[in-house]
Amino acid sequence: MEHSFIAWAKQRSSKLPQVKLGIGDDCALLAGSAEDSVVTTDSLCDGTHFILSECGGRRAGRKLLGVSLSDLASMGATPVAVFLSLCLPRAAAGDIASEVFEGVLEMAKEYEVSIAGGDTNVWDGPLVLNLTAIGKVEPDKAWRRSGAKPGDAIVVTGVLGGSILGKHLDFEPRLRLAKKLKELDIVSAATDISDGLGIDLLNVTVASRCGAEVHLQKIPISEAASRLAQSSGNSPLDHAIGDGEDFELLLAIPKEKLPLLPAEIDGVPLTPIGEFVSRTGLWSKERGGVKQLPPRGYVHS
Amino acid sequence: MEHSFIAWAKQRSSKLPQVKLGIGDDCALLAGSAEDSVVTTDSLCDGTHFILSECGGRRAGRKLLGVSLSDLASMGATPVAVFLSLCLPRAAAGDIASEVFEGVLEMAKEYEVSIAGGDTNVWDGPLVLNLTAIGKVEPDKAWRRSGAKPGDAIVVTGVLGGSILGKHLDFEPRLRLAKKLKELDIVSAATDISDGLGIDLLNVTVASRCGAEVHLQKIPISEAASRLAQSSGNSPLDHAIGDGEDFELLLAIPKEKLPLLPAEIDGVPLTPIGEFVSRTGLWSKERGGVKQLPPRGYVHS
Repeated sequence: MEHSFIAWAKQRSSKLPQVKLGIGDDCALLAGSAEDSVVTTDSLCDGTHFILSECGGRRAGRKLLGVSLSDLASMGATPVAVFLSLCLPRAAAGDIASEVFEGVLEMAKEYEVSIAGGDTNVWDGPLVLNLTAIGKVEPDKAWRRSGAKPGDAIVVTGVLGGSILGKHLDFEPRLRLAKKLKELDIVSAATDISDGLGIDLLNVTVASRCGAEVHLQKIPISEAASRLAQSSGNSPLDHAIGDGEDFELLLAIPKEKLPLLPAEIDGVPLTPIGEFVSRTGLWSKERGGVKQLPPRGYVHS
Repeated sequence: MEHSFIAWAKQRSSKLPQVKLGIGDDCALLAGSAEDSVVTTDSLCDGTHFILSECGGRRAGRKLLGVSLSDLASMGATPVAVFLSLCLPRAAAGDIASEVFEGVLEMAKEYEVSIAGGDTNVWDGPLVLNLTAIGKVEPDKAWRRSGAKPGDAIVVTGVLGGSILGKHLDFEPRLRLAKKLKELDIVSAATDISDGLGIDLLNVTVASRCGAEVHLQKIPISEAASRLAQSSGNSPLDHAIGDGEDFELLLAIPKEKLPLLPAEIDGVPLTPIGEFVSRTGLWSKERGGVKQLPPRGYVHS
């Protein structure tokens, strides 16, 4: 199967000028650039990150690329090329490969990414997907988790929680939004919300050696979180803080630049939910004062 | 497990100047460079590319990095950084992760590669490993499969066949040898022998739009190929041509530069076994004349 699939994949992949040599040799060749390269890799497994029999290969492929593009967005980077590796169940290897590739390709076109190489394997296990994405960013201009300072506002994009009801497969990575924020030059630190707001915010505070105070009532809760709360026994707020795979951005914005923050970009709201503080730990700010906020979130492993 | 493993992995990974930001953020950051980037990705699955219960995680990890470094060598590239992604069986995830990482780390030190990022997942399936390697090469100086011309000599490194008896796990990627050949500036095309001499030679001829005539009696046959032939029903030559995973280099050297080719480099023989010809296809040159050589080789899928 491999040779005909590779030929088909090569023919379907768009050629972008930064890719000197794409699918078909031992390695791909990307043109040199003065910009920094930004690299992320993710594996998704059937039964853990998606259920192939429920969502199909195309949506799994979309998620695969989306997860990596969300990581590039959270560094303020522009995608250059991606590398796709498939471990395919023997029974329907060819069909699954085509479906996954269609899903990746669909989103790759939308975000002008080139699929520049990969690897296909057939085996006796369930479907495993891996994607490595390479992006670029002006030298030393990448957003890092470590850049937040006490006094910076905590801002989230979109609405949070309940992504298991569908968004975890069909989210849009916040690349275009990140590009516009990059032009405004107002972000001091960023990450994407993949493990859940609580855990991802904690990660930023640890990397930035500070703490965070969150106004719980300001957290934008998704309709899906409310729906899920009806049967889960948890509150919508619990879902917004604890659920993973929102693939929204969590940003630090210095207080003096906050007036430059748009209320929304392309219909996606940008919501200040609190501020970074010098006292380490996560804290919830409520009418009565400040209480410790237990880090919550969903980690696959 | 993920957080403690990541912290341990970060602490164990050596820092090289080209990696501005390694393990621990949403993406890694590599410094910009005027050189072309060379990228390869490979997945290895338990039961297909290695048998974890027989070889252990450390040797699987060595093979994982070796496969990618062999691809970089076949493009004439120097490694920059690698990205490691693990799908770990739930029962012994932590132990397996550490063993695989040790194997990768051991070889990474030997070849001065930085492990700059990755992804760890725990699931209910067997062990799946993925590694993406990024290398660099002077602009437009990468060796491609497509550069062979009729009249160029076909040269192989090392000895071929029977790698299933052990070499497929414990081979040394030919990076140092490739570096010395690059300095001599005598290579017009290259690939590594991963699917088997027959198939890989065919790939070079197809990419270069030419054919190849092989002197069968010149093919360097490994001692393992002879050993395997005692029980397999195939000849040692069959194994040398058809077995995969030799991870030796297959090179095209223009005839006028052949006198510059060393007989060996660091103890690894370099053997001319025939020449590229304008008539397409693979041909064996024997005392009686020229016969068609069926492409043989082992492909995992």
